[in-house]
Amino acid sequence: MKRIGIADTTFARVDMGNIAIDELKKLGTGFRIERYTVPGVKDLPVACKKLFIEKQCDIVMALGMPGAQEIDKMCAHEASTGLIQVQLIVDKHIIEVFVHEDEAKNEKELAWLAESRTREHAQNAYRLLFKPEALTKLAGTGQRQGFEDAGPVR
Amino acid sequence: MKRIGIADTTFARVDMGNIAIDELKKLGTGFRIERYTVPGVKDLPVACKKLFIEKQCDIVMALGMPGAQEIDKMCAHEASTGLIQVQLIVDKHIIEVFVHEDEAKNEKELAWLAESRTREHAQNAYRLLFKPEALTKLAGTGQRQGFEDAGPVR
Amino acid sequence: MKRIGIADTTFARVDMGNIAIDELKKLGTGFRIERYTVPGVKDLPVACKKLFIEKQCDIVMALGMPGAQEIDKMCAHEASTGLIQVQLIVDKHIIEVFVHEDEAKNEKELAWLAESRTREHAQNAYRLLFKPEALTKLAGTGQRQGFEDAGPVR
Amino acid sequence: MKRIGIADTTFARVDMGNIAIDELKKLGTGFRIERYTVPGVKDLPVACKKLFIEKQCDIVMALGMPGAQEIDKMCAHEASTGLIQVQLIVDKHIIEVFVHEDEAKNEKELAWLAESRTREHAQNAYRLLFKPEALTKLAGTGQRQGFEDAGPVR
Amino acid sequence: MKRIGIADTTFARVDMGNIAIDELKKLGTGFRIERYTVPGVKDLPVACKKLFIEKQCDIVMALGMPGAQEIDKMCAHEASTGLIQVQLIVDKHIIEVFVHEDEAKNEKELAWLAESRTREHAQNAYRLLFKPEALTKLAGTGQRQGFEDAGPVR
Repeated sequence: MKRIGIADTTFARVDMGNIAIDELKKLGTGFRIERYTVPGVKDLPVACKKLFIEKQCDIVMALGMPGAQEIDKMCAHEASTGLIQVQLIVDKHIIEVFVHEDEAKNEKELAWLAESRTREHAQNAYRLLFKPEALTKLAGTGQRQGFEDAGPVR
Repeated sequence: MKRIGIADTTFARVDMGNIAIDELKKLGTGFRIERYTVPGVKDLPVACKKLFIEKQCDIVMALGMPGAQEIDKMCAHEASTGLIQVQLIVDKHIIEVFVHEDEAKNEKELAWLAESRTREHAQNAYRLLFKPEALTKLAGTGQRQGFEDAGPVR
Repeated sequence: MKRIGIADTTFARVDMGNIAIDELKKLGTGFRIERYTVPGVKDLPVACKKLFIEKQCDIVMALGMPGAQEIDKMCAHEASTGLIQVQLIVDKHIIEVFVHEDEAKNEKELAWLAESRTREHAQNAYRLLFKPEALTKLAGTGQRQGFEDAGPVR
Repeated sequence: MKRIGIADTTFARVDMGNIAIDELKKLGTGFRIERYTVPGVKDLPVACKKLFIEKQCDIVMALGMPGAQEIDKMCAHEASTGLIQVQLIVDKHIIEVFVHEDEAKNEKELAWLAESRTREHAQNAYRLLFKPEALTKLAGTGQRQGFEDAGPVR
Repeated sequence: MKRIGIADTTFARVDMGNIAIDELKKLGTGFRIERYTVPGVKDLPVACKKLFIEKQCDIVMALGMPGAQEIDKMCAHEASTGLIQVQLIVDKHIIEVFVHEDEAKNEKELAWLAESRTREHAQNAYRLLFKPEALTKLAGTGQRQGFEDAGPVR
């Protein structure tokens, strides 16, 4: 049975981990979920590596909500760099789901954005693991997660 | 028989993967194409690594269309850093073909730019694999992919 | 018996190492502390690696106080990048506790911030090592270390 | 016999590879040159690695001419980061010779700068390989490649 | 007998290598010095690695003087990133001593700063190698190298 890891943070202002688990359970069966919560996004890379190495996960979703300050942007960048390194060590995907606090106009939109982006990326994680050909059908169509799709250009 | 990998995204607004495959088929034979579509540019590094490791590709084209926001520039930077790391692990080339949304004046130009840059870089990938001496002949001539060549200076 | 490493600097203007040790001792027993002081934050990555490799630490707290200049921000970024790399080499957590000099309005607040952030992150380190489920209970609740928690959004 | 690698690009607007080879031949004998041309600076890291691994080079010159746009600066940064990584993998020097298009006032100066910097760095490569003590004699003297030396301060 | 490496550059406008060696000899005996001069700061990472691997150094001082331009800042950043990577490969310290040209008001101050920072960091290198407990005594006291110490805050 496949294993999907969920790495999330106490820093985030929305329980993205729970949302991801809820969405994944709607999408299908045939997998088990391993969850690992850490303080902030910079703790996510090693958390993901541990989910791969110690919990034998086949894919991991890395969920975080960086703050709006310049320093938060740098933290997110460092975390993202680490998440890519982990993928290259284990040869498996990590779907990074970061929602920046300043992407939303207000708290209500922030909660909505975190939920919808998490759910749409849970679908991407599911496809990568079970239906990669579904992604090829969407190639070049301007998909976005959370806000409206950009769509294709001609 | 040589294998050329095509890694592309659902985020891109042009089906750069299809264009690359079309161009490669015009350039010659003697190779097989493996395609792998992922959600966004940050998923490309491990996708390329998997194309090298699991599909025995000899070269990979990594196709993406980063958005126009500051955060998109950072994503592209993180992806590019990862793509270079992959090359240094496998000792093989990845031809990165990124078209930034703000490089074009409008959607029509964006579609044109994505197509022409992809086609010209498909030629570069083909040369690297089959005719490296063709690149040496062009050394220092100010080649560009998509927009007009800058040309040499004296 | 578990070992907790404390890596700190002579550059910091608050003895964050002593504060971390004090807090950890209040939190419980069953662990031994190893301390390693280096000149600045850029010396922390290898100090942490040595605490893991030579002192068999199970987790390390990396304590630093970057200055307020642009160059200090870059040093902190380089240090953070290195700290993430160390974690991916040893598959263990480093809790980075950086207090930027310009986060505080004055020296008094800086001293307060360094102490409270260090103490709260000592609790995070303790939880990661002994009570990881305590962090999952706090997932998505907008925890902050030092300044007031941001709290959840709905 | 020692081998010196020359990695250059079709993107550059000056044939820096030819200039480097010309200068090296003037400096001495006892080495063989291996040349490898790639599309752009981001292709240089793996090209250099291949020159070391597949062609047994003892040192490599990485020649490039990044454009004047912000995106070009980022490409150069990514390339440089990769070039340093390659050196740390093979324990051999790569002399990076990058000439940024906006360093020169006009095309004529750009051509001059590319040539003079390439020639002076060819001398550095030669010294590193055959006469390292010559560099120690120049330590702290404010050497520059291309533009006038800055000279020492007291 | 311990070995201390000194890696310096021809780009620097002060002979920081000589100053470091002079200071180290004043601090004690029981060590041998290995010096390696390279063109610029981006050549320092592999130079340091070679000092560790080929010359069996136990610690290395990496001495450089980045210029005042934006491109110089980026070079320094790339060099620093590489220096941290080297430390994580060999599990030994590199004391980076970079003096940015624009840190000083004029050439006289630049020469003074380069000398005093190099001497103070030579003391740090000596302590890390022979008296690590001396650094712990200075933890959190706001030490600076070159300019006046910032001192502790309460």
